[in-house]
Amino acid sequence: MENQELRFASRFDGVTGSAIRAILGLLGKPGMISFGGGNPASDTLEEGVVAALAERVLARDGKAILQYGATEGYGPLKEALCGWFEQLGFRPRPEEVLPITGSTQGIDLIAKALIDPGDVVLVENPSFLGALQAFRLYQARLIPVPTDGGGLLLDDAERLIRQHKPKILYVIPTFQNPTGVTLAAERRAPLAQMAARHGVLVLEDDPYRDLRYAGDPLPAIKSYDQEGWVAHLSSFSKIISPGLRCGTLTCRPDLLRKAVIGKQSTDVHTSTLTQAIVAEYLRDGRLPAHLANIRAMYAARMHTMLDQLAAFPKGIRYTKPQGGLFLWAQLPGSLDATVLFQQAIEQNVAFVPGTHFFCDGGHTDTLRLNFSNSTPAQIDTGMRTLREVIYEMEN
Amino acid sequence: MENQELRFASRFDGVTGSAIRAILGLLGKPGMISFGGGNPASDTLEEGVVAALAERVLARDGKAILQYGATEGYGPLKEALCGWFEQLGFRPRPEEVLPITGSTQGIDLIAKALIDPGDVVLVENPSFLGALQAFRLYQARLIPVPTDGGGLLLDDAERLIRQHKPKILYVIPTFQNPTGVTLAAERRAPLAQMAARHGVLVLEDDPYRDLRYAGDPLPAIKSYDQEGWVAHLSSFSKIISPGLRCGTLTCRPDLLRKAVIGKQSTDVHTSTLTQAIVAEYLRDGRLPAHLANIRAMYAARMHTMLDQLAAFPKGIRYTKPQGGLFLWAQLPGSLDATVLFQQAIEQNVAFVPGTHFFCDGGHTDTLRLNFSNSTPAQIDTGMRTLREVIYEMEN
Repeated sequence: MENQELRFASRFDGVTGSAIRAILGLLGKPGMISFGGGNPASDTLEEGVVAALAERVLARDGKAILQYGATEGYGPLKEALCGWFEQLGFRPRPEEVLPITGSTQGIDLIAKALIDPGDVVLVENPSFLGALQAFRLYQARLIPVPTDGGGLLLDDAERLIRQHKPKILYVIPTFQNPTGVTLAAERRAPLAQMAARHGVLVLEDDPYRDLRYAGDPLPAIKSYDQEGWVAHLSSFSKIISPGLRCGTLTCRPDLLRKAVIGKQSTDVHTSTLTQAIVAEYLRDGRLPAHLANIRAMYAARMHTMLDQLAAFPKGIRYTKPQGGLFLWAQLPGSLDATVLFQQAIEQNVAFVPGTHFFCDGGHTDTLRLNFSNSTPAQIDTGMRTLREVIYEMEN
Repeated sequence: MENQELRFASRFDGVTGSAIRAILGLLGKPGMISFGGGNPASDTLEEGVVAALAERVLARDGKAILQYGATEGYGPLKEALCGWFEQLGFRPRPEEVLPITGSTQGIDLIAKALIDPGDVVLVENPSFLGALQAFRLYQARLIPVPTDGGGLLLDDAERLIRQHKPKILYVIPTFQNPTGVTLAAERRAPLAQMAARHGVLVLEDDPYRDLRYAGDPLPAIKSYDQEGWVAHLSSFSKIISPGLRCGTLTCRPDLLRKAVIGKQSTDVHTSTLTQAIVAEYLRDGRLPAHLANIRAMYAARMHTMLDQLAAFPKGIRYTKPQGGLFLWAQLPGSLDATVLFQQAIEQNVAFVPGTHFFCDGGHTDTLRLNFSNSTPAQIDTGMRTLREVIYEMEN
């Protein structure tokens, strides 16, 4: 049965699935230290709190929570969200906010609404693999925009907008995945203005902004959006729980309406139980204290990893982010990170080779290192192993 | 801001969203008796049970439930499902089953994997509006297949397969939405064989099969599938809770793999909390007793509605299903069901005009009546109102 090929042509025939998720599949091995993935630390997940909140919301509004809900989202969550967004520098009206089944769904819905085969999407280079794949499944043409330590280079972005007439410019402005880089404060308003000037939608993917360990928060690009050319994605996956699958899309009502139409045909609505749990979590005011805890934990882990990197062979380059979940490194002497990966895996250490994050491939000497999901002791051990493997590869 | 049009061309420009969900938006009015929608009765939703199951699964496996999970689904749910499917006449292996965020997501994922603009999908006429919309968003060309009281007419289906070379034949074989009709037993094996013969995927959408009030269960079309040309969708929305958003896709591993790739970019995975609750519900063996309760309730409601229809003006025609959630009626004298709808709404009675379920429109004298979500007293009152409005329209 499996030997018979389906005779369909499929738009997925050239897509092999997420390399990250394939790599994550290797990590079940006992004793594996994983710097792959982008998971929050399991210690920070509050199963007792979630159980208590589930009981409370079901006792209060159980029939509505278990019945079909509106595609537009669960009312109490939308109310809680509109206040929560104030810290980002904007306060959307309810018709500008859509609860979604994780922020990845927002990328899918925007692409589904706007992308016809061959349409251009500009992306940072490197960028989030899941987003690249989401755009590719709609047969978008991905054009990389150069970046530096302050994120997207605006002159290059504008030149590429003129040249390629993209529909979407996808950007992760704060503690970017995979690099950890943050879009400079002085580039944010000009980027919003550029989007309006050229009629390009900036899709601002912003799941890491609350994980800041140094420096002052920056306003979202969306906060400078006067005419509705910025759509903003947020997520509770990194700060409450990824297993609940709850994120948000905030954008102009006419674009949101298109996303709602797409969502009707995708999952009808996000699970109301998980929406209600997140709403109650926000209403209880639990987030500030929880964020303080996880910031302290992740900052320590990041610094442990940075301390280890300082002892790596000369010539390695790496980012020193002010927050987020990832460091990004470039190996000395053009060493191949995929070879490093194979050898490291044998010694029970995993990461993601950086080449997967470049829409045009290459950059085989780069790697992404996640620090949130390993203890400081694991980080010490795992980084020493990586260092030794690199020394061996060099000699 | 809202006056400025986004300058994008969008594949959604011709799509106005689900007429049913727009109609449901009108139903918040106090005192409204709704025969629209396809909701389970709120009385059947077990908020205390769900709260207890949530507490139990979070106590047992909370870290894994709140962490990222595999796109392929939560292991304990997949195990529970493989046994549950035995009643349908097949026992899939775990790599043939994908938990999804409601069965509508299965339609979306299959369409996303297989449909390029202009590809043909054959559909029953009438068919489920949400499915028609899902296919349209991928710019499929929908071709209606004639049906009779035994469902899809196979000779017509084969003729249209030869003529249009469709990629998918979408069918709701049991207690169809919107008509309540069931595909005859003797048409099921031949349909599976026809699919294999022509290389067409039969997408079997099967959310109502457990809601049988008379007659013997029929095997799923999937149970006759020898070569993997039938993909089967099931749902817990009608029998446990729609708010949890949990359904299943069962198909050949190579097609399932394509669905998994699409799902990675859509919602990464279905909420593990809701998957775990459904798994625990099945493992506890709660479903048979619960089904016995809701079958008795819905059967009584259906018969109340049928009794009322028997007193309607002569010339009205309607289905007498053996199960499901819907009756389907054709008004006498070519009366317009949209006019009836407008007048009925003013008297606090709602339903869905049938024209929306036809991919080629027309059939303005038809309507769909849901009986599961109104009490027998509401059905008596609402149907008397409809009868009086029809009398007035006739005279």
